[in-house]
Amino acid sequence: MSAPVLILVTRPVEVEPGAEPGEASRPFRLADVALPQLSVLDLGVTRGDGVFESVRVGPSGSPDLEAHLRRFVVSASLLDLPAPDLEVWRQAFAAAVSEARRRGGDDEVLGVKLVLTRGIEGRGVPTAWVLAQPAPDHTAVRRDGLAAITLDRGYRHDAGAASPWLLLGAKTLSYEVAAAATREAARRGAREVVFVSSDGFVLEAPTSSVVMRFGDRVVSPPAEVGIIAGTTVTRALAFFAERGFETAEERIPVSRLARADAVWLVSSVRQAVPLTALDGRPLHLDATLTAALNAHLGT
Amino acid sequence: MSAPVLILVTRPVEVEPGAEPGEASRPFRLADVALPQLSVLDLGVTRGDGVFESVRVGPSGSPDLEAHLRRFVVSASLLDLPAPDLEVWRQAFAAAVSEARRRGGDDEVLGVKLVLTRGIEGRGVPTAWVLAQPAPDHTAVRRDGLAAITLDRGYRHDAGAASPWLLLGAKTLSYEVAAAATREAARRGAREVVFVSSDGFVLEAPTSSVVMRFGDRVVSPPAEVGIIAGTTVTRALAFFAERGFETAEERIPVSRLARADAVWLVSSVRQAVPLTALDGRPLHLDATLTAALNAHLGT
Repeated sequence: MSAPVLILVTRPVEVEPGAEPGEASRPFRLADVALPQLSVLDLGVTRGDGVFESVRVGPSGSPDLEAHLRRFVVSASLLDLPAPDLEVWRQAFAAAVSEARRRGGDDEVLGVKLVLTRGIEGRGVPTAWVLAQPAPDHTAVRRDGLAAITLDRGYRHDAGAASPWLLLGAKTLSYEVAAAATREAARRGAREVVFVSSDGFVLEAPTSSVVMRFGDRVVSPPAEVGIIAGTTVTRALAFFAERGFETAEERIPVSRLARADAVWLVSSVRQAVPLTALDGRPLHLDATLTAALNAHLGT
Repeated sequence: MSAPVLILVTRPVEVEPGAEPGEASRPFRLADVALPQLSVLDLGVTRGDGVFESVRVGPSGSPDLEAHLRRFVVSASLLDLPAPDLEVWRQAFAAAVSEARRRGGDDEVLGVKLVLTRGIEGRGVPTAWVLAQPAPDHTAVRRDGLAAITLDRGYRHDAGAASPWLLLGAKTLSYEVAAAATREAARRGAREVVFVSSDGFVLEAPTSSVVMRFGDRVVSPPAEVGIIAGTTVTRALAFFAERGFETAEERIPVSRLARADAVWLVSSVRQAVPLTALDGRPLHLDATLTAALNAHLGT
């Protein structure tokens, strides 16, 4: 497995017309991931104050890149960060992938992370980077699935709409609750979590979206319940629609989730992982359908 | 104002008896805050996965240090981080203060931050540092107060007890909601926020505890409502008790907050700041009492 490629993005946000380009006229540069690159004063670490995206790059590219970039812009806007200069990010992304390909070959599947923080406190200059790494091999878990539990996310399904400062739709660096929930799952003998709202609706998993099959219907919760709008879930629903399933985004009560015929957690880098059990109840795993779904997502 | 002092804590957590001390046999070392010190792979930044404390050091020292250290241990435990080695942290804290005193003199008020992250993903070695900086001059805001608004924190008052993975009692680096709420306050012409639970109880402010006076009673919400147990609030309540007020920790409905005779936001570094208005309603500011409270906290 080749070493991660780090690109520091020195001009990550849109510059006012007429502003001096200054020192950072080169918009990004390759850096050494083995060396420290961040200040302890960076609000990204002291406050989890920043946004990110994780993008899969397969042998044939990254069909979701533009969807990720659109969500990156939305996340930054929800945090009142300056607008990312997408042309710079596209170039930095391409440079990171190109360098990773040079090191690891064209067939390696990559996970590429885009990060934008508010930068050093008081300075008003964001910190930004692109990190391209060989993706972990998720083959086994995609095929064999894993067990999940439901955990209460603590918010009502309408909290995000009523209280935008909760940032429920933003993909921020403040991810500690997701990590803590995953550790709670491990304590209960499971590997994954399906978050549910305090008023009993299915939300999302810590790092993926939830797709449920009920007979010939396949559904996923809408962003309006206070979750991050999935990029991969859109392509997953398209896959099911092409196969003749009825698909929809709709609010699913937990009581209905308990009767699902199948559940997948979908995300960009890990793709679709079938659940083998939910809260101890075994779930049917359709190996053929799951393999086809992953083949579709992996193009 | 003198430059911040950075101490990297290289042996921040308790080591198994008999374990090799290894390279990091010196438990901490002075480092240059102007240089990058953190990896972009550190979970502190990629996931807000870590804990911190902010400790005031006045001319006569830091009477709350042990209370902060106890809370630091609780926060680490809630996050399943290894237990901080408090003897090492005490020494690193003293070294940072000593160096800051050497640079800035003995009368400078310092804010000292202790940070412990989960470290680089997959490596299992925490990252840790102590940062001592001259505290901003909060004199004016302590005297003149500021306006606040209430904002819904989205959780019921009993969410933290029911769902410990929400980490409501831990002082984590995932602080983005607090920052977003403060920006929302600014949009509404206020400087501060009093968070309330979704079922209508007073919680805390983004970086301070709430102390309310109702006639001769002074109260603050208990940690059980899902807030960080304040270190400074204990000493604030003791101040009022010494002055003949009845003091208590109790759940306060928002409807009662709206009838408070006075409200202070108390925290270690900024101390007690009186609110001049809450949701647009002017509040009485007792300048003499506030000054005495701050003199008490500032010892």
